[in-house]
Parts: sequence; structure tokens; C-alpha cells
Amino acid sequence: MTEGTPDGVCPVLPSHGRVRPVAQAAITGGFWATRQAVNATATLAHCESWMERLGWLANFDRVADGTTAPDRPGWPFSDSEVYKLLEALAWETGRTGDPEAEVAIKRLTARVARAQDPDGYLNTCFGHGEQRPRYSDLEGGHELYNLGHLLQAAVARLRTAGEDDLVRLARRAADHVCRTFGADGLPKICGHPEIEVGLAEFGRALGEERYVEQASLFLDRRGHGTLRDIPLGRAYFQDDLPIREAEVWRGHAVRALYLTAAAVDVAVERGDDELLGAVERQWERSVARRTYITGGMGSRHQDEGFGEDWELPPDRAYCETCAGVASIMVSWRLYLATADVRYTDLIERTLYNIIATSPSPDGRAFFYANPLHQRAPGRPADGTEVSPRAEGGSRAAWFDVSCCPTNVARTLAGLGGYLATADGDGLQIHQYAPCTISTELPDGRRVAVDVETGYPETGTVRVRIAADEPSPWTLALRVPAWAAGATLITDAVARPVEPGMVEVRRVFRAGDVITLELPMAPRVTWPDPRIDAVRGCVAVERGPEVLCVESRDLPHADALDALVIDPLSGPRTDAGGVRVRGRLPRHPDRPWPYPSATDSVDNPEWFDVPLRPYHSWAHRGPSSMRIWLPASLPPEGEQRA
Amino acid sequence: MTEGTPDGVCPVLPSHGRVRPVAQAAITGGFWATRQAVNATATLAHCESWMERLGWLANFDRVADGTTAPDRPGWPFSDSEVYKLLEALAWETGRTGDPEAEVAIKRLTARVARAQDPDGYLNTCFGHGEQRPRYSDLEGGHELYNLGHLLQAAVARLRTAGEDDLVRLARRAADHVCRTFGADGLPKICGHPEIEVGLAEFGRALGEERYVEQASLFLDRRGHGTLRDIPLGRAYFQDDLPIREAEVWRGHAVRALYLTAAAVDVAVERGDDELLGAVERQWERSVARRTYITGGMGSRHQDEGFGEDWELPPDRAYCETCAGVASIMVSWRLYLATADVRYTDLIERTLYNIIATSPSPDGRAFFYANPLHQRAPGRPADGTEVSPRAEGGSRAAWFDVSCCPTNVARTLAGLGGYLATADGDGLQIHQYAPCTISTELPDGRRVAVDVETGYPETGTVRVRIAADEPSPWTLALRVPAWAAGATLITDAVARPVEPGMVEVRRVFRAGDVITLELPMAPRVTWPDPRIDAVRGCVAVERGPEVLCVESRDLPHADALDALVIDPLSGPRTDAGGVRVRGRLPRHPDRPWPYPSATDSVDNPEWFDVPLRPYHSWAHRGPSSMRIWLPASLPPEGEQRA
Repeated sequence: MTEGTPDGVCPVLPSHGRVRPVAQAAITGGFWATRQAVNATATLAHCESWMERLGWLANFDRVADGTTAPDRPGWPFSDSEVYKLLEALAWETGRTGDPEAEVAIKRLTARVARAQDPDGYLNTCFGHGEQRPRYSDLEGGHELYNLGHLLQAAVARLRTAGEDDLVRLARRAADHVCRTFGADGLPKICGHPEIEVGLAEFGRALGEERYVEQASLFLDRRGHGTLRDIPLGRAYFQDDLPIREAEVWRGHAVRALYLTAAAVDVAVERGDDELLGAVERQWERSVARRTYITGGMGSRHQDEGFGEDWELPPDRAYCETCAGVASIMVSWRLYLATADVRYTDLIERTLYNIIATSPSPDGRAFFYANPLHQRAPGRPADGTEVSPRAEGGSRAAWFDVSCCPTNVARTLAGLGGYLATADGDGLQIHQYAPCTISTELPDGRRVAVDVETGYPETGTVRVRIAADEPSPWTLALRVPAWAAGATLITDAVARPVEPGMVEVRRVFRAGDVITLELPMAPRVTWPDPRIDAVRGCVAVERGPEVLCVESRDLPHADALDALVIDPLSGPRTDAGGVRVRGRLPRHPDRPWPYPSATDSVDNPEWFDVPLRPYHSWAHRGPSSMRIWLPASLPPEGEQRA
Repeated sequence: MTEGTPDGVCPVLPSHGRVRPVAQAAITGGFWATRQAVNATATLAHCESWMERLGWLANFDRVADGTTAPDRPGWPFSDSEVYKLLEALAWETGRTGDPEAEVAIKRLTARVARAQDPDGYLNTCFGHGEQRPRYSDLEGGHELYNLGHLLQAAVARLRTAGEDDLVRLARRAADHVCRTFGADGLPKICGHPEIEVGLAEFGRALGEERYVEQASLFLDRRGHGTLRDIPLGRAYFQDDLPIREAEVWRGHAVRALYLTAAAVDVAVERGDDELLGAVERQWERSVARRTYITGGMGSRHQDEGFGEDWELPPDRAYCETCAGVASIMVSWRLYLATADVRYTDLIERTLYNIIATSPSPDGRAFFYANPLHQRAPGRPADGTEVSPRAEGGSRAAWFDVSCCPTNVARTLAGLGGYLATADGDGLQIHQYAPCTISTELPDGRRVAVDVETGYPETGTVRVRIAADEPSPWTLALRVPAWAAGATLITDAVARPVEPGMVEVRRVFRAGDVITLELPMAPRVTWPDPRIDAVRGCVAVERGPEVLCVESRDLPHADALDALVIDPLSGPRTDAGGVRVRGRLPRHPDRPWPYPSATDSVDNPEWFDVPLRPYHSWAHRGPSSMRIWLPASLPPEGEQRA
């Protein structure tokens, strides 16, 4: 129980688990520090100003002033954007003590607080004046979803500043939810999971078991067809099957993942190994068969949802930014419960290739969908328009459904909470960035390290012990699954280390340095032959980054359609970056594209094709782009080896 | 002008063109006769009974009785299903003189007629009682779309029976449209094109130039952003660009194609070669880059729309049945205008692989979408449920949006109208079925033939002259583009003929036989290398039929994911049907499906894989299925030749 004693930047703090997160970790430079700074200085204000401009904030004033109308600006879930911004601001104050963020929290909290009904209900779209009645559209109304985000914001506030008005109003809202939907209340659920994960963490943060209990109730209710059937089917909101019985994630990706995150929380708090095991199996199959090389999840635009096994089209990949956020939420919870490195591996992949891809360098435009292949470049965004989904290859300032900007903001502001964990014997470092990490072990010993690295530009990670500690402890470092050939240097002795967690147990003195060398040569990756949509293609990765080719780096506009690369000559790195050998066969323009024979051979010149990190695509303006590159070799590998 | 003198089954009758359709053509047996009989004896009544059950017919009664409410059963476009059924019934009476169909026409017409307002407006969703006002939602209201289908039904009635109540009420509706949306009226258009093609043909059928004029007005208005922008963009309803300026079909496929059909009509009636040329260029690029091997159009579920060039995923292919109907409408009009055989080639492909695929053998269930790859078989349909889209690989009895069943019904009933054309010098036969064809040439000579064939089971097409004619005339037969190696036999002399139209000009006597031998050996087809989604795969076709593999013909349930075939050994035909050599490499189940090397070689036994016509897939129950089969050869063909 931590009320009044803030823990720091720590979005997830289970009451037990194999390891516990380290809240005292601060990123001090490099790739992520830049993004955190842009988030702090640009994105947070950008989000508030758009919500003001569009009337999403004024929706709260209208409820408070009794001036609601049947219609209002924004979708029913626009309240949640305010709460996600509050969460981001709270992590930001915890990270830097930024006084502007503190003022913004108070300003926004005051407006939200005025709109809360005396019984704790809080919503700007339902339940006031001529609006539809409370909970009259559980399938689409998002009332509980919104409150879930409110509770997550309150958790952030509680852990970084302690109890305040935001936390108190969140308590009233959580109590209202428990009264209304408790064991003796309405036996219903919300179409969009999120209240569950909000209740579980808020309950943990406050030591209020009944909030966790309510999360558990909601979880158990789902999957029994309580929600009305819809044309997309009840799988859309995971009401088709109890979560314990499901074998794979399906339906709307963000919904599936928010729900799963809550399931891990409830399983851990209640020691429910059956539920935890079910979630682990769902993760396994979904990651093995329904996940993109970028870590992106959600293959379909139609329902923003998972497709079938192996249905992973690169061009129509939806890979919603928010699904990346939610995937990290799930994997982090699973890691804390199990200490299995596969979860932190996937987090790294998702951070570099989804979270880092969404925002523009100036933090004022975002990708919503993250396709792996852009066929036709759209027009440049002008920064003033609300985009439907930013599908044309230009990041957009804001969206009609604008869940992604605030989701990126809260993830970046809270990123320090995902770097490291501790257990009874020492410290585990998972994500590499220049940073300081310190924590108290359960027996009271304090361990502290500084990390120096140019990662992911370079592969050297130096961990410098920052404090003497006379008894031995274990420093564990994650060797990513892709990092075959890594070496660990201790006391000037290098030894090869395998992917997984590499441990050094000894007495550490301040100034001791442990160095991990990760191999950063670009590498060719082949897709499982069952992923039909990229058959015959390869991708190039470098460290945690997936690379891509943009049409603006090729000789002519249509070249990306013709490009074939030679995967056997291997990608090379030179001063200009990573390059592969490619060529551009000329394809005849047939009136009918299904001929009775393949094209006759032509042998155009090979040339160097520059690759760039996928997360930086379209930084130079709209472009066509592809990650998966057709290879001049048989795809099934039958004629190699 | 044909009022009072029915022409027969002739959906399209331009006032001029390179050729004119032959209305006196009757299919007497074989593949299509079976489907026409099922359509007549099962589908027509099936459609009426579902529309009665769901209240779509009672909607007309409610308007007539003044008992409308703000809400009513069905989507705003449900009226159009009644009109498409009327069109189907009218062609059916023209085809067979079926008295039941005649009774049904009168029964339905009477109900529709009662709902018509005195000024000709006719709609059950808008404009009465507490319903929304007329034309208050042109983007989504479908009022003019519905009327377009009414006019097409009236055309069918006029050409098969002459003027009656249906034709008269359609006249009143058309006059209302012209008054309301004429040059001095509302300068608006309907979100779903269809009124244009309805007005143009109704105008031609009645000799009412002003209806064609109104169609032309609607066409010219579109593309100027008159309709409100929507999240899917104005391209969704082709209001992004004037039709003369467009280079390719885009947005919602059925909308794009209905609009294009009208554009051909208007271009032909007004001698507007610029417009005709624009449409031909759009057809060319769309067929070359945005069309499936089945003839299916529309790659995307999200907007039921065309994708970008080369975006042709087989698994998520939408290929709406109605887009197949609409594609035939476009190509037939273009053929009549130009006599270019590429259009009738595409019609054949679409007939065998989209139109024939949708209905079940009993005519009481339908596919809405026609994917080329079904990953997971759904559950069997039980014939009593309204399906959202029948996406699970089971044909459904009816749909929430149920445009496809009636569209198939009207196409099958009117199919005789697409078999043959005539010009000043003779007869052209385009689609091969056992049939009788007779027509009067412009100079008064009557030519008549009987066709005997087992097509597409066998490739022999015998055309027997049915009437003496002392002066020479030309019989032209379509040799499909796929039929390299065809031969023509005249007077016991065989000669090789090339794809295109093969002509025999001479004096024909009754009993003369001309025989076309089309090569029916199964053949391997390769996709253009730019169609990323099927790279490394081949398809097998036989005659006009695209073939597929169903999982139920393979050794185990997951086999379809592993199947690789040998395209070089070639498909074979034996008593059991068509077979290819295939094998099932064992793929390791990796935790992460993007390894750093391809699988090591395994060499499982080759075995015979049976193929079936795609149009018959899932006839034996739900199954996974694929048309494009991974080939054990490099896809780009670089290492062949």
C-alpha cells in the first residue's frame, strides 16, 4: 500500500510476481531521451490544444454547467483522451518534475471534476439532460472504457504525487462502478475492455481489494454473449468466448490486448495460474502466427482486428499504434509474472518499430495505422487537418478517432518504468538506453547502476556500478533473441553469451563496468512460409530496428513495385547507412496480369539500395515504402541448402 | 422506340453501337440452363419470402397505409431488393413465360404502387410521417439508387411484356427525379450511383431522351465534391474526381461500376467519344492491375472497394458478387459500343468464377464476398439465419445487406441477353451454351442457329445453322484469350484459329455445322510479379474455370497451409478430375515466425492434389480453400528460361 508514498514512474506494480519493476530509472540520453523530450515539450501541449479546439474539453464544462445537448463534439470515447493525457502528464511530472505539466494536471483535473455527478458517474456523452441514459449502449457507448483510463491516470498521479483531487474523483468513479456493476448490480460489461485493467491497477495502487474483485467480475462475465451481436460478430469485443477458453487473440486488437492485460493482473493478484496459463498460451500462438515483424498486431482495417493465423498482409496491415501500446502492457505484465525474456524481447521490438514509428520528429503528427508496405504515397499533411486514419503515408496532427497520440504520449512519459526489474538477488536490465537505475532490494540493500550506450546506433552497452555494496548480488542483462554472437566483457575478459538473460553475480564496487556487446550488423530475415502475403520476400533488420526501402531512394517512382534484392550477397553497412544489392526487372504492362508463363529473363544492373529504419519512414515526406523485399531466390528454401 | 413491341430478354439496347444485342437467344441446356432453372424454381421465391419475413415488403404497405414510424425494418436500400426481384421476375417471364413469375410481378407491383406519392416519389424510408425528409441524406439515403433499380425493373417489364402498371409507376418516378434534380432543380447526386444507368436504359427503352439527359446531368455533377466528405473519403462514392478525368476505378466497387455502366450508355447515346475513351482507359488499367483472376473486383473489406494497383490479396479479397454483376454490365456495354473481344472475355471469366460461385446448388444460399483463399472454415450455415457477409466459407440464406441474391437472380434470368450480338453482316456468338439464337439483320434477313456443346466440361462447340438464307452472311465465334491452340472445323476441314473473333462468311444452309474446338487441358497461370500477395504461387485454370484446392481433399486439416505444388510437371486430367503434383513440407512451429534462415530442406513424398472448379467450392460444406498455390520454383522466373 503506497498511498502518500509515491513510488515513481511505475505503470504496473503487482503485489507479487517473479520480479518487480524498478520505478527509479531515468533515461538520460539517446534515442528515447530525445523522444521523451519532444513528448514533453511538444506532444502534451499539442494534445491539449487539439482537444480544446475540437470541444472535447468543453464537453466537461457543458455537463458541469447543465448545457448538454443530445449531440456533442467527438466520439463517445473522447473523454478517455483527456484521461490519457492526464496520465501522460502525471508520468511526466514524475519523470522531470515539470511544473507546466503539474499546472496542466490541476487545470484539467478541475474541469473533469466539475463534470462528475454526485454519485461518482462521470461521462460527457450519456446521462445528462437530453443525452441518452447511462449505460444504455454498452456495446458502443464506451462509458466504462473511459473510466478505465481515468483510473489509469489516477494511478499515475498516485504513484508520482500521491493522493489529490484526481485520485479522489477516480475513487468516487471506481466506487460508482463497483456499486453499479458489482455482484449484486447490473451483470453487464463494456464493449471496449479497459475498465478492468484500470480497476485492477487502481486497486493495487490503493490496496483496495474490491477494485481488483470488480475487475475479476467483469473478466468472468465476458465471453458469454452479454453484449448484443453485431455484424462484425461478438469476437469483435471478445464476448464470443470466456477468456480462459480462448486459444488466440481475435477481434479488435486493442480490445483484446487491454482485456488480456487485465487478465494477467487479476491472475497474479489472485494466484490464478489457470488464467495466467491461458493468457500465456494465447500470447504464444498470437505472437507465433498473428504478429508482424514490427511487433505490430491487428491485420485488418475492417474491424481494427486480428486476422486468422498467418494472415499478415504488409500493405493492408492495420497495426494500430494503440495495439502496440496495449501489446507492451500485456507483455510487461507477463514478464513481471514469469521473468520470461520472450516478453521483454517483444517489448523492445514493439518500442522501436511501432511506438517510435508513430510520432513525427516534432511530436505534432502521428501514424495511426502502421502498414509494412505503402503502395501509393499520399499528399503531405498540412498539420491543420483532422485525418480519418492517416492512411496515405503522412503522419497526421489529429484524428477523428484520436486514441493514438495520447497513447503514445503516456507510453513515452512512462517509459522509464519498463527499463529494469529487481528480485531478491539483484537487478535485471531489459531495455538499453543511457540511464540511471537504482532500487532497494527486499533485504534493504540498495543497488544502483548507470548505463552508457549509443544503442541502437551502436551495440555497446556499458553498465557502470554506481554504489558499493559489500555483499554479492546479481546483475542480469537481456541478450535479445536476435543477438546471436553477443559478448559480455567483465574485468577485461570477453565471453560469448547466448540470447536470454546473462547474469553476473559477485560483489560489485562503484565504478565497476560490465559491458555487453550486441552485434549490430544488418541481417536478413525470412518469413515463415505460411505467411502467404510475403512469400518470396525477405526483410532486413539491424539490432532492434526493422529496416525499409522508400521509393524516394530509388531511381524512379514505380521502382518499388519492381525491386528485387539479392539476399545472399547480404546487406552491408557503410558511411551512408545500410545497403542491399537490388535490381529492377522490367515487367511488361500486360492487359491481363495472369499470363501463362513467367516473364522472360532480363538482367538489369545490380545497384545499391539504401535502407532506413522503418520508424523514420516518411520523415522526408510522403513516399511509397516496403519492409518485405522480393528476393531473387526460391522462397521455400527447397532449392538452397 | 419499342413501346408495345417487346424485344425479349435484352437488358441493354443502345440506340447504336458496333453491334447490337440479340434478344432472341434461349439457353436450352447445360451449365447455365441448370442455374437458370434453379433460379426460377427456387431463388425467386426464396428472395420474396425473405423480404416478406423481414418486413421489407411490408415497408411499402406501411407507407400506403400511413403507418410509418421513424424506424423501419431493413437498411434504406432494402426497397431496391424488391425492384431487383421484379427485374428478375420480368426477365424470367420473358425467358419462359412462367405464369407464377407473372403473378408475382403483379402482386409485388401492386404493393409498390400503393406506396408511391402522387408526385411520383417512391421510398419507404424517407419522406413520410416522422421519417426523415426526402433527400435529406444523399450520401447514405440511397433514395435515387432505389429508383434506379425500379427503372431497370421497368425496362425488363417493358421489353418482355410491354407497358403495364410497373412501367407506368416507373415513369412517374423518373419524371419526379427529372423535376427534382433537373437542370433547374437540386444540383445534387446520390451517394450510390444507379439512378444514372436506370434512367439511361429506361430512356432508351421508351425513347424518352430527357431521361438520358438527366442521367448525363447526374454524371457530370459527380466528382465535384457535392457529397459530404466521409472518413472513407469522397472516392468511396466517386465524388472525388469527374469521371472524364479519372484514370482507374477506385472506391466502392459496385458504385464505381454502376456509374461506369451509365457513362458508357450516355457516351454512346450522345456520341461522346471522349467519355467513352476515358471509360475504356479506366477499364484497361483496372483490369490490368486491380482485378482478380476470377474476374472479381474490390480488394478491400473496409470500404467494399478497389485497392491500389497490384493490391490483390487472395484471403481478404472482397470480390463482392454484386461487383461481378456490375462488371458484366460495364463490359457488355463496352462490347456493344466497340466490338472488342476483351470485354466479352472478361464477361465469361466473371460469369464462371463470380456469378456461378455465389449461389448454392439449391439456389437458396449465396456468397456475398468471393475470396480466393479461405484460411479457416466457418461453421455450416443452417439456412435460417441472416448473415452479415457470409465470410466464413458458408453460403448464407440471406444477408443484413442483401444485395447479392437478387442481383444474381436478375443476372441469371437475363443471361440469354448476353450470348450473342448481330451487325449488318451477321451474327456473333460470345458465350457458349446449348442454345437457340435467331435475329433479324438490318436488311431484313433472318439468321438462326442452334448451338450444341458440353462446355465448359468439354471444349467442342457445334453451331448448326437453323434456317436457309440464300445470300452470304458472317458467323463469328469468340475464341477466348486463354484458348491458344483452338481449331475451327468447317466442311470437315480443321484449321487453327487465334484468340479473338473467328469469322466464317458464306452462304449458309439449314443443317450446316461449324465446329469450334477449344483446348480444355488444365493450364498453369502465373501472376504478374507485382501482385505481391500471390508472389511465388501459381493458379490452375481449365477453360473458363479457375480451379481451387479444398482442405477436405488433403490428408489433414492444416495441410492447405503447407501445400507446395510442382508447376513444371503440369496439371493432369483423369477420371477423377484435374490433379497437380504437390507435397507438404513440415514447417517447424517457431515461437517467432521470422527466422534468420529458411527452413532446412525436407523432401516429403509428392502426391496427387485434386483440384475443383472454384465455383463449386464449399458445396460439400465449409472448408478451407485456395486458388493460388505456392510453387516450388522461383516466382520471378529469373532462374528459369
